[in-house]
Amino acid sequence: MRYASCDTLLTAYLLLTQDQDRAVLENGALSISQGRIQAIGPREDFAGVRAQHTLHLGNALILPGLINAHTHIPMTIFRGLADDLPLMTWLNRHIFPVERSLTEEMVTLGCLLGCAEMLRCGTTAFADMYLLEEAIMKTVEGCGMRVLAGEGIFSFPSPAYADTAAALDLVRAQAARWRGHARVRVAVAPHAVYTTTPELLIACRDLAGELELPLHIHLAETREETAGCLSAAGRRPVAYCHSLGLLGRRTTIAHGVDLEDEDLDILAENGVRVVHNPRSNMKLGSGVAPVPDLLNRGVTVGLGTDGAASNNSLNLFAEMSACALLHKAVHRDSTLLPAQTVLDMATLGSAQALHWEDLGVLAPGRPADLIALDLSSPGLQPLYSPFSHLVYAASGLEVRLAVVEGRILYQDGHFFSLDYPALLKETDKIRSWVLRARRRKQPPRVSGREDADF
Amino acid sequence: MRYASCDTLLTAYLLLTQDQDRAVLENGALSISQGRIQAIGPREDFAGVRAQHTLHLGNALILPGLINAHTHIPMTIFRGLADDLPLMTWLNRHIFPVERSLTEEMVTLGCLLGCAEMLRCGTTAFADMYLLEEAIMKTVEGCGMRVLAGEGIFSFPSPAYADTAAALDLVRAQAARWRGHARVRVAVAPHAVYTTTPELLIACRDLAGELELPLHIHLAETREETAGCLSAAGRRPVAYCHSLGLLGRRTTIAHGVDLEDEDLDILAENGVRVVHNPRSNMKLGSGVAPVPDLLNRGVTVGLGTDGAASNNSLNLFAEMSACALLHKAVHRDSTLLPAQTVLDMATLGSAQALHWEDLGVLAPGRPADLIALDLSSPGLQPLYSPFSHLVYAASGLEVRLAVVEGRILYQDGHFFSLDYPALLKETDKIRSWVLRARRRKQPPRVSGREDADF
Repeated sequence: MRYASCDTLLTAYLLLTQDQDRAVLENGALSISQGRIQAIGPREDFAGVRAQHTLHLGNALILPGLINAHTHIPMTIFRGLADDLPLMTWLNRHIFPVERSLTEEMVTLGCLLGCAEMLRCGTTAFADMYLLEEAIMKTVEGCGMRVLAGEGIFSFPSPAYADTAAALDLVRAQAARWRGHARVRVAVAPHAVYTTTPELLIACRDLAGELELPLHIHLAETREETAGCLSAAGRRPVAYCHSLGLLGRRTTIAHGVDLEDEDLDILAENGVRVVHNPRSNMKLGSGVAPVPDLLNRGVTVGLGTDGAASNNSLNLFAEMSACALLHKAVHRDSTLLPAQTVLDMATLGSAQALHWEDLGVLAPGRPADLIALDLSSPGLQPLYSPFSHLVYAASGLEVRLAVVEGRILYQDGHFFSLDYPALLKETDKIRSWVLRARRRKQPPRVSGREDADF
Repeated sequence: MRYASCDTLLTAYLLLTQDQDRAVLENGALSISQGRIQAIGPREDFAGVRAQHTLHLGNALILPGLINAHTHIPMTIFRGLADDLPLMTWLNRHIFPVERSLTEEMVTLGCLLGCAEMLRCGTTAFADMYLLEEAIMKTVEGCGMRVLAGEGIFSFPSPAYADTAAALDLVRAQAARWRGHARVRVAVAPHAVYTTTPELLIACRDLAGELELPLHIHLAETREETAGCLSAAGRRPVAYCHSLGLLGRRTTIAHGVDLEDEDLDILAENGVRVVHNPRSNMKLGSGVAPVPDLLNRGVTVGLGTDGAASNNSLNLFAEMSACALLHKAVHRDSTLLPAQTVLDMATLGSAQALHWEDLGVLAPGRPADLIALDLSSPGLQPLYSPFSHLVYAASGLEVRLAVVEGRILYQDGHFFSLDYPALLKETDKIRSWVLRARRRKQPPRVSGREDADF
């Protein structure tokens, strides 16, 4: 062992690395120094290492923290507010009326609740797109997680800006403020083709290029989006965005459900990354993304939960399971999307979707973002393959440890970077505020594009 | 309040009854006497009641225990042994070789593990079909749960019997032994059309009629089953069973995936109950059962997990979620199978599928089978609708209490009717035995029907 000391030393029955060989170490250990993984190896190799903090996890499985590559974290405040409705009824009667009067306080509370939920079930980093994103960045900075945060950009006003020029200025200011931050990064996030103009999409493309930021956009989520785009621009959404120069190596698209062969070719040829959100697509009846086809073409696919209003959780274990099962069902093929592939999506694939490529793997020098699951839960016994259990058997609440950048944020029921008991007391306030905002009389709508669909 | 005393008094923030009005009581209480629910009402109504045992659950949700209407509980020993394979490879190389040499000890250990898992995630009763079912009945009797147990009947030998006559005698003896037991009931369980003869199915029908037992059979699980039945008997599986007089009010079929309109009509007209197993059907690539069509025709549909080898859990929360999402996805309709309908399936529907109609609801006089979920989990906040959270947000591990017939079997990490720490130590033994049995040289196969597909 080359190191004499470390900040934290972890040991566990199993250590799953997600490295190039997908190595799993039995009775493994991992040392952390200055927020990064210092060394990984058999436990006996660490015998002489002095650690400031040692955690022997026993019958546990350590793995990289999962990465939620597409969400709208403050939408936790809408979890279960309304379900099982036609999409437009749900949006127009329940979601939009409340979003129009959204406050920084509600965004912050929703974000805190979402962070607590994600840590609780093993997610350590996420990509977000919402309104008042600055409040989210500050909250995530405070609670120790990692985020790629994109202010949702529309061609109409949002609670965060009065017009598109102000929106672009806001993103520019955010990028300047957070540049170089270890855990908070900024994305340029035009909302969708149906809530923007071609000029605005081009401006977003140029801004992302100039500031060297990832570009994150909802694309090809529904047949309705395709029909609208064909009617307005004469092209399908992917071809339309491609014609505007929006699809390149810095671009990640969320959903990618309604894709035809020509769309798949454009995505593959241009190195675009795709985030699959199976539970949201299922719940909203949007259809089934052609994930096996995307993977066959070599497209990088990450995994996301979408917002908690259309899921209704931010639990990537539930998402992995839905992903592994859905495509087998639809194609009647039990060999599609095996467990390893799906775990890769939620770790390595999502890291690439965030354009944060050093995440998603446990290896020396990489950020120390990891989680540990209690293997003594009856649902995880007996254990033949940890990959299988992570995707098909774990519920997510077996997670007993979440570490980001070497810092323990959650362990055995306790949150160390947020005051969860205090937050829990605020949930009544959240609920009352949402129900009041939904009841409030709405101003008349100016145009169909006024409604931002998250 | 009519009662002065009770055995157990429970209070919680929410009490969800699943009664005819689907009433949910805020700050409710429930009293239990002699294994049955004595009274339910507002907490203040119970002020003067003397209880031997009182549990104030606080921020919790009490509801009827979930009912797993189709499983093969000892298959927990195969959880994650092999996945993502073509069905026949999985069965022939991994499952059948081990099942052929199955022992009572392994069935018992697998059953205990499955019971622990089910209690841990809120299931209090189940319907089982497997080999050496007597060992399962004894185990369930000991661990306090409820089971409708059916010895799998094939037209070839099983570890439990040498021939079909012995199989029928065995069921007859089981029925005599367990008759009148409060928690253990016996079913007649011919395995499937492709593992039986018409004569054997008729004998099973007659035995169920004579002993007044439910009849449980796998039916219409895959297209391959249909093709085989058409080729061997000239009819589709449902019509074939109907022609043998097998489909009536005491019959429950598991799966019901490959159903055409004429099949649906037969099931509806004959009062047959169906158990939907969405996760297993998805994982095995069997297809999607026409559940909305069944419900529209008034067919009673319960929910099951199938065995843990093709799921890979026995968690009905995961099953409810998969059920609610799958049909919306396949039909691109977000209004299909709303949360209430799906919760009904896992409680009232499953109770009917077990032909145990007084289960699945909290009402005075009914068996005191109930569970409680911790609502302080971040994934269950804020709370607008408990139905929504149970189906779309809960993972199952929020369960903190499981009660069967008035007896607390699980609470806050502790099992009271089984020695879980001791069982956990046996899981290594299970694993070694299974891996050894899989490696063992197999006798040559006599016919295609030799392989029992659970």
